[in-house]
Amino acid sequence: MTARIIDGKVIAAELRARVAEEVARVKGEHQVTPGLAVVLVGNDAASEVYVRSKHTQTQAAAMASFEHKLPADVAQADLLALIAKLNRDPAVHGILVQLPLPKSLHTETIINAIDPAKDVDGLHPNNAGRLAGGFAALSPCTPLGCIILTKSVHASLEGMNAIVIGRSNLVGRPLVQLLLNENATVTIAHSRSKDLPQLCAGADLVYAAVGKPEMVRADWIKPGATVIDVGINRLPLADGKTRLVGDVAFKEVAEVAGAITPVPGGVGQMTVACLLVNTLRAACAIHGLPKPAV
Amino acid sequence: MTARIIDGKVIAAELRARVAEEVARVKGEHQVTPGLAVVLVGNDAASEVYVRSKHTQTQAAAMASFEHKLPADVAQADLLALIAKLNRDPAVHGILVQLPLPKSLHTETIINAIDPAKDVDGLHPNNAGRLAGGFAALSPCTPLGCIILTKSVHASLEGMNAIVIGRSNLVGRPLVQLLLNENATVTIAHSRSKDLPQLCAGADLVYAAVGKPEMVRADWIKPGATVIDVGINRLPLADGKTRLVGDVAFKEVAEVAGAITPVPGGVGQMTVACLLVNTLRAACAIHGLPKPAV
Repeated sequence: MTARIIDGKVIAAELRARVAEEVARVKGEHQVTPGLAVVLVGNDAASEVYVRSKHTQTQAAAMASFEHKLPADVAQADLLALIAKLNRDPAVHGILVQLPLPKSLHTETIINAIDPAKDVDGLHPNNAGRLAGGFAALSPCTPLGCIILTKSVHASLEGMNAIVIGRSNLVGRPLVQLLLNENATVTIAHSRSKDLPQLCAGADLVYAAVGKPEMVRADWIKPGATVIDVGINRLPLADGKTRLVGDVAFKEVAEVAGAITPVPGGVGQMTVACLLVNTLRAACAIHGLPKPAV
Repeated sequence: MTARIIDGKVIAAELRARVAEEVARVKGEHQVTPGLAVVLVGNDAASEVYVRSKHTQTQAAAMASFEHKLPADVAQADLLALIAKLNRDPAVHGILVQLPLPKSLHTETIINAIDPAKDVDGLHPNNAGRLAGGFAALSPCTPLGCIILTKSVHASLEGMNAIVIGRSNLVGRPLVQLLLNENATVTIAHSRSKDLPQLCAGADLVYAAVGKPEMVRADWIKPGATVIDVGINRLPLADGKTRLVGDVAFKEVAEVAGAITPVPGGVGQMTVACLLVNTLRAACAIHGLPKPAV
């Protein structure tokens, strides 16, 4: 068997197109332009690339994009003052503070200062709590992307057995909640779990989010299962260059699985598109409009 | 094999005794008397019994106990005003609003009005979010009781396979988080799960919290597993009386399991004792004291 490849690039592009349509509709019908503010502290190169991509994609969807660049040595009080201003700004519906922050800043305090209604990264405890309680919430973008990719294969996840390997706050834990909301049966495994291959053997859906290159092997996977690879690991090559690989041994697992996401070109493509979805949803909720059709 | 019976009555009494010791220490060393305020709206008979038991046990631990009884037709604004007053009251470290509330009141609004630092029922989204994020949080009392009962059998739950049947906000979902914090591998199953017996077959720890009388059968259970029964169901008898049973078919499962909680006399015994634990912990946190030894 050779797995169907789940093309994150195509699915993300479709999602962005649907967001753009809904943005046009909301603008036309309600005179609301969803706006995303991104706050970048310091000069981390990877963060700068990522923030630029957010900016471009936000504008491409005809949403308002606001960028705030602060020096690495910004005082915490000044950053908090900026967040307070963005919380009050009616043109801003989504606030994203790019992580990681410099060590001089207390990440938890910063995240907690964001108005939960504008917390499009889904990191505020209030959103995590609402999600954990099964209530409507802004949920973190990467897990949201995982669900959308899965549903490109399976219209309904009800009653399917899912395993999530990795229990981070950004991916594993919120992903469990989203899968529960889809009525899947969910197992959450992690570094202290015993006999991972055995735990995976019964899973219809496998999510790998551990940051261990090619850890998940073909003989762990039930034939026909759907495998979603959240890992992005950079392996050094003999010639001094590097190669990007996921947490799944793609080539061999693709021989067993029914569907699989590649790395790159899978989950990573979805994150910014889901950020646009969250910003659109936040704008509609803040203005008391019905939930958008995306 | 005949299972060891996990005696909730004995374990809860030990826990209350340890709370009382810590209360005496905190009073002596820091002149802080932990105080619990219980708010009861209306005249539900079962709630009145439960509130009386809380009052007695709080006083037995030499903590301060405050009772507020409001009529069933109290205005929501008046209840919110009382909660605001209790939030400000330095003698009150724990606030519990007895549920269910009359339908005229919006439960979510009431719960969200409680200062998360005093939310000893662990129901505020902020606490649920902190728990879901793996941070220190006040967690709901029944799941906390389940963990304490399990640890009376197993000193460490690390790497054990646990299954939680039922995904309620009060029990199933927070129990998953507490088990993850203990480094167990956790599966969460529910009404839409397929082949529950098969899902249970690999579990070292089985938690039943679904509200279906004697649903969990002997042939679901791995020999030697620990079975914690959260269900409390009232079965009618031929003579017009009723019999209390759990979600586990106790008699037959006790022949297979290694350890099991009875109903009554198991989990139900732990809830108020854990409420005292939460009130003590909240008092220490509010006063900036180290976490108590219970």
